[in-house]
Amino acid sequence: MDVSELGEFGLIERLRAALPPASDARLLVGIGDDAAAWRSDGGCTLATTDTMVAGIHFLPGRVAWSDVGWKALAVNISDIAAMGGTPAFALVTLCLPPDAQVADIDALYAGLAACAQAYGVTVAGGDIVAAPVFAITIALMGDTAMAADGSPALLRRDGARAGDAIAVTGALGGSAGGLRALREDAAPAPESAALIERHMRPRPRVDAGRAAIAAGVRCGIDISDGLVQDLGHVCNASGVDAELWLPRVPLDPALVARYPADAPAMAASGGEDYELILIATEDAIRAAEAALGSPLAVVGRIIEGAGVVHALDEQGREVPVPAGWDHLAPGRRS
Amino acid sequence: MDVSELGEFGLIERLRAALPPASDARLLVGIGDDAAAWRSDGGCTLATTDTMVAGIHFLPGRVAWSDVGWKALAVNISDIAAMGGTPAFALVTLCLPPDAQVADIDALYAGLAACAQAYGVTVAGGDIVAAPVFAITIALMGDTAMAADGSPALLRRDGARAGDAIAVTGALGGSAGGLRALREDAAPAPESAALIERHMRPRPRVDAGRAAIAAGVRCGIDISDGLVQDLGHVCNASGVDAELWLPRVPLDPALVARYPADAPAMAASGGEDYELILIATEDAIRAAEAALGSPLAVVGRIIEGAGVVHALDEQGREVPVPAGWDHLAPGRRS
Repeated sequence: MDVSELGEFGLIERLRAALPPASDARLLVGIGDDAAAWRSDGGCTLATTDTMVAGIHFLPGRVAWSDVGWKALAVNISDIAAMGGTPAFALVTLCLPPDAQVADIDALYAGLAACAQAYGVTVAGGDIVAAPVFAITIALMGDTAMAADGSPALLRRDGARAGDAIAVTGALGGSAGGLRALREDAAPAPESAALIERHMRPRPRVDAGRAAIAAGVRCGIDISDGLVQDLGHVCNASGVDAELWLPRVPLDPALVARYPADAPAMAASGGEDYELILIATEDAIRAAEAALGSPLAVVGRIIEGAGVVHALDEQGREVPVPAGWDHLAPGRRS
Repeated sequence: MDVSELGEFGLIERLRAALPPASDARLLVGIGDDAAAWRSDGGCTLATTDTMVAGIHFLPGRVAWSDVGWKALAVNISDIAAMGGTPAFALVTLCLPPDAQVADIDALYAGLAACAQAYGVTVAGGDIVAAPVFAITIALMGDTAMAADGSPALLRRDGARAGDAIAVTGALGGSAGGLRALREDAAPAPESAALIERHMRPRPRVDAGRAAIAAGVRCGIDISDGLVQDLGHVCNASGVDAELWLPRVPLDPALVARYPADAPAMAASGGEDYELILIATEDAIRAAEAALGSPLAVVGRIIEGAGVVHALDEQGREVPVPAGWDHLAPGRRS
């Protein structure tokens, strides 16, 4: 059987079952959240990894190598942000074809270094190997403090409870707009520049994750697969349903300008915005907003259920989940 | 310019220079040792990563997928052992072509799980991506205790001092013999089985690294590139020369049986034995031997110098460094 028949999530479940049960008492969060977490002596260590393969996760020739370097690190930082942590140390693995150009790798590292500097990340090691195709894999370690009661302070996927508010940071859909522009525009259109920047230079929300933790929020995820699908991951992990109020979803202004008709669907289902979904009582969300110093948009609420996201229109009627113009494209990052 | 013109070590130096200077005061060991190390609250965290690409680092069709899974984790464990640490948590990234077979991935994970169980490693997360070629990248975190004086207890590459003894664990060359058998034998020869096992199922020396730390040894490296080359890494990092007494290098008995004429050269220059080189005063080496409960072979000594390994024959005459029949093969792991 080909692995493509199993699908990514089927394969993950199969491989998880093949591993010995986690026997290390320090483990707090294993396979299936944004990052792994384990107790260290005075706190909690986080670790995550993410890969970008040429031709699968980015379009060589259509994007700048410096942007690939930025994004390769940024998507990992977002996983740490999604746990409420602070990124610290990275290991960088390069798979390089023999004809890879030094100038391209220099540009890759310039972008990676800029992202590292912006987020206070230290590249502490890595590996360079020959391969038939370019790929960059980054493993990123970070940490969170323990809460006052000695429990680890983490934004987990399994912490949503009926009655909680669902909030998002920032505005959504810009990254999907950028990917669409990269694919459809014969030449870069000036009005696409902001969207392409959003797609290739995401700004992970470490600030919002930390503010949420400080405010007592304990459930969250980053938006990598798209709002609807990522909210679905939380609902599955928590054993609840969600009402998603589509008209409340904040739309990226550049997306609205460029793709007005499709903007609402792209904001609900487009991936790779790397904003955060935060789920907690309304009071905790307001406290997080105060700690962050900028507004969070409440876009729905958690209800009793078993893992379903109900998308509601302006009249409160359930509508089919927006299809997301690119939702199941091969290689969509998770 | 193609990256192949720069070479791996030239590229690493170039990329290191492109990164912002390490600003995190917790960092103890950055780019250029077996693993990165940083202070955690009560000790020291270690992290390393290593990749195996199909067709570059192993020969699909000639080796068992379960062995690939074992080895992918084992080579990372060896990096932690080479710092004197204990492995703990792994992140596993799979790059999978769409026609990858589920049965092969099952076998891969069976081998990986066996290695994880043997060494007490917990797989805590990872990533699965589509790619045109199979590759497995593992990031492994571990830890070491702090020494009694509060300093981090690590086996570093830069700790060799003139007068120190050079010791190795185990017997060498078996892995190079296994690789040679895989390449040269039309069908698996029974007398090659032990060598192929040595090549595909290395047994990293966590025991020896820990014993060395307990005995006060503070310089070491694992044998991945080959004894001569890895000793050269230590000499470069420490600013010393080494005398390597070739007749003292312990030879793998199966290697001697299969390739008697080439065995000494293969033991000196063949890679991927994943034994340890330990460098310390003779007394500390003897103490490590006692702590380990099995003998270490003293194969040379550190002298004043600037990074050169002098290979000496039985009469103490300097001889050309054994060429190593496969020393610069593309994709040789470092």
